[in-house]
Amino acid sequence: MLKISQRAVALPASPIRKLVPFAEKAKKIGRKVYHLNIGQPDVQTPETFWKAIQNHNLKVLEYTHSAGLESYRKKLSQYYQKHNISVSYEDIIITVGGSEALFFAMFTCMNPNEEIIIPEPFYTNYNAFAQIAGVKVVPVSSKIEEGFKLPPISEFEKRITDKTKAILIANPGNPTGYIYTREELEQLKDLVLKYDLFLISDEVYREFIYDDKQYVSVMHLKGVEDRTILVDSVSKRYSACGARIGAMVCKNKEIIQCALKMGQARLCAPMLEQIACEAAIDTPQSYFDSVTQDYVARRNVVLEGLSRIPNVIYNVPSGAFYLMAKFPIESSEHFCQWLLEHFEYNNETVMLAPAGGFYATPDAGKNEVRIAYVLEVNELKKAMTCLQKGLEQYLQQTSTK
Amino acid sequence: MLKISQRAVALPASPIRKLVPFAEKAKKIGRKVYHLNIGQPDVQTPETFWKAIQNHNLKVLEYTHSAGLESYRKKLSQYYQKHNISVSYEDIIITVGGSEALFFAMFTCMNPNEEIIIPEPFYTNYNAFAQIAGVKVVPVSSKIEEGFKLPPISEFEKRITDKTKAILIANPGNPTGYIYTREELEQLKDLVLKYDLFLISDEVYREFIYDDKQYVSVMHLKGVEDRTILVDSVSKRYSACGARIGAMVCKNKEIIQCALKMGQARLCAPMLEQIACEAAIDTPQSYFDSVTQDYVARRNVVLEGLSRIPNVIYNVPSGAFYLMAKFPIESSEHFCQWLLEHFEYNNETVMLAPAGGFYATPDAGKNEVRIAYVLEVNELKKAMTCLQKGLEQYLQQTSTK
Repeated sequence: MLKISQRAVALPASPIRKLVPFAEKAKKIGRKVYHLNIGQPDVQTPETFWKAIQNHNLKVLEYTHSAGLESYRKKLSQYYQKHNISVSYEDIIITVGGSEALFFAMFTCMNPNEEIIIPEPFYTNYNAFAQIAGVKVVPVSSKIEEGFKLPPISEFEKRITDKTKAILIANPGNPTGYIYTREELEQLKDLVLKYDLFLISDEVYREFIYDDKQYVSVMHLKGVEDRTILVDSVSKRYSACGARIGAMVCKNKEIIQCALKMGQARLCAPMLEQIACEAAIDTPQSYFDSVTQDYVARRNVVLEGLSRIPNVIYNVPSGAFYLMAKFPIESSEHFCQWLLEHFEYNNETVMLAPAGGFYATPDAGKNEVRIAYVLEVNELKKAMTCLQKGLEQYLQQTSTK
Repeated sequence: MLKISQRAVALPASPIRKLVPFAEKAKKIGRKVYHLNIGQPDVQTPETFWKAIQNHNLKVLEYTHSAGLESYRKKLSQYYQKHNISVSYEDIIITVGGSEALFFAMFTCMNPNEEIIIPEPFYTNYNAFAQIAGVKVVPVSSKIEEGFKLPPISEFEKRITDKTKAILIANPGNPTGYIYTREELEQLKDLVLKYDLFLISDEVYREFIYDDKQYVSVMHLKGVEDRTILVDSVSKRYSACGARIGAMVCKNKEIIQCALKMGQARLCAPMLEQIACEAAIDTPQSYFDSVTQDYVARRNVVLEGLSRIPNVIYNVPSGAFYLMAKFPIESSEHFCQWLLEHFEYNNETVMLAPAGGFYATPDAGKNEVRIAYVLEVNELKKAMTCLQKGLEQYLQQTSTK
């Protein structure tokens, strides 16, 4: 009998996707749905980017070098320099989004069935890429009550086996918005030196850091240049999610060489967007300042809204545009679906991301949600009111059952 | 000790890449190099495409649906209808180039260590994707002397084991330009039905078919809709290699569902190019007629040039823009390097692709080259003269040694 591959069947489905039909149904009956469930910012892509798309004079849309346009990589190395990351353009491979950079990193570091330790909650798609690369995710729990700081190194050590090959972090974190301190990164450095591991760091939210927090990249660490890999993307930086431009950065020539062979197989990243991203590096600082200001204001609306709800635990993020909240409920999946299916306040409701998908430990985070503050302040205020009223009503109903 | 993954190290390097430094050196000393080694056409990308890039009114470059823009998929299903391929937009996943479609197809059909039979010579990158997917390529030889027609089905059957899961063909072929007949496809159909295999077909050159040859797609075959997968790309169709837009088309819902999960992990294909490709479907037929005319003229120049060279065997392609030639030499790799390193005629030389990389059988095709006729007729004539003079001189030198 014809059978498709079990590993493909086993690929995780996004938990948010299950909610989509309910959101669509709500909209169909004229209900307004505030989307706090997705990482798609409403921020405008900068003019520098759009102008480059308008002003190119290409006649033939050719392949670029498989590592990316040399001029873009050179300019990108200058961009990194501004963040005190010293890399040559030869240490950079332009990828199809951060997604591809992550996959290249996992594949070049790890053989099938080897293990990668990731602090949870983490970006859901790490699971899918691990599955595609045939490697095993080993979670180590960070806690909402502790603001998602790095778990104790002893917890990492407990999970290290002879199959452990790498540690993966996101900094600033998605879904937590947490920013690792220099001390935490130094601890990770000692760990990867001690056990001969790679340290992969997804730093796509580096432009979104608030409260004068300091951004420390794995590329700032000394003495681990052979084992640190930076995963990057322009998706959030320039609000250009649909550009599909990312980068894998590494000073280990062997890693770059192998990643380049993967790159040659798929030929190149899209050319027009590489040109536009090269131009976007000259986006004035005022653009980022204004975006950051907006996010701080938005975050504060969410924090203020949550502070009004009794028995909710949440973290105060200093980066990215997400935070996690834990409600006094059994199942956030059920609650999120209920909000879309059975609740309205002034004919409005709110869509959140149930947090289960961000954890690899079974049942972890099942009463938590991720809130993406990607709406304007006035919309966000109404969304938070919906959430408050929704939770009240949900708890009343549940308790009377 | 820190070790990168063996499977990454084992990834095949492109054989053409080895020649690149020699081509660069030749250019540095002022030599003109005719590039017959690459599949990058010089044809202009159609106006329909460029206008859509100019005229969009996006402010935020957002993610698209992971299966691709619905409007593009709907229009694409109309495009396929023109080729008598009846598919709904729900049977289509827009991919990042044909490359990703191929990877999705291999991964969804096959478990690790399973086998895929491919008639050789075949597109080099099939090897890399098989390696990344952890599956094994089993070659079955087609012969230049027979114009690369489908090998006898008995040869396929000899290679079928309990690990065989799929057959992969390219139609029209790269590097051969061969077009499979309906009879050959019916034979493959019987084979995949008999042994419960998937039939994956890379048909990215369907617009380039000459001599009134008939294009028969695997999607035309009746009774195998559950096991045929079409791999497609706009790279050659619209001379838009750098757009990175392809498609995986399949009527097996389970395959599409799993491929979509892979698609969701990497989020989406680039948005702007999806918009442009949707518009490019309205490219007037005159564009393709003129391109096809050019390629026929170019092919004829190459055939005429080869006919003047003694002891050369070559096939007459009716599709794509490649052909294969077998020279009375020991090693085409050595010859191709020699052309760049030691030869010139009027301070010009020619770069070809040694064919070894298109074969999986060790030593197969080692005296063959692939010729891509992607230059204008007058340039091609000079390139063919270079090739003729080069081969003469090479043979003289070799025989006097």
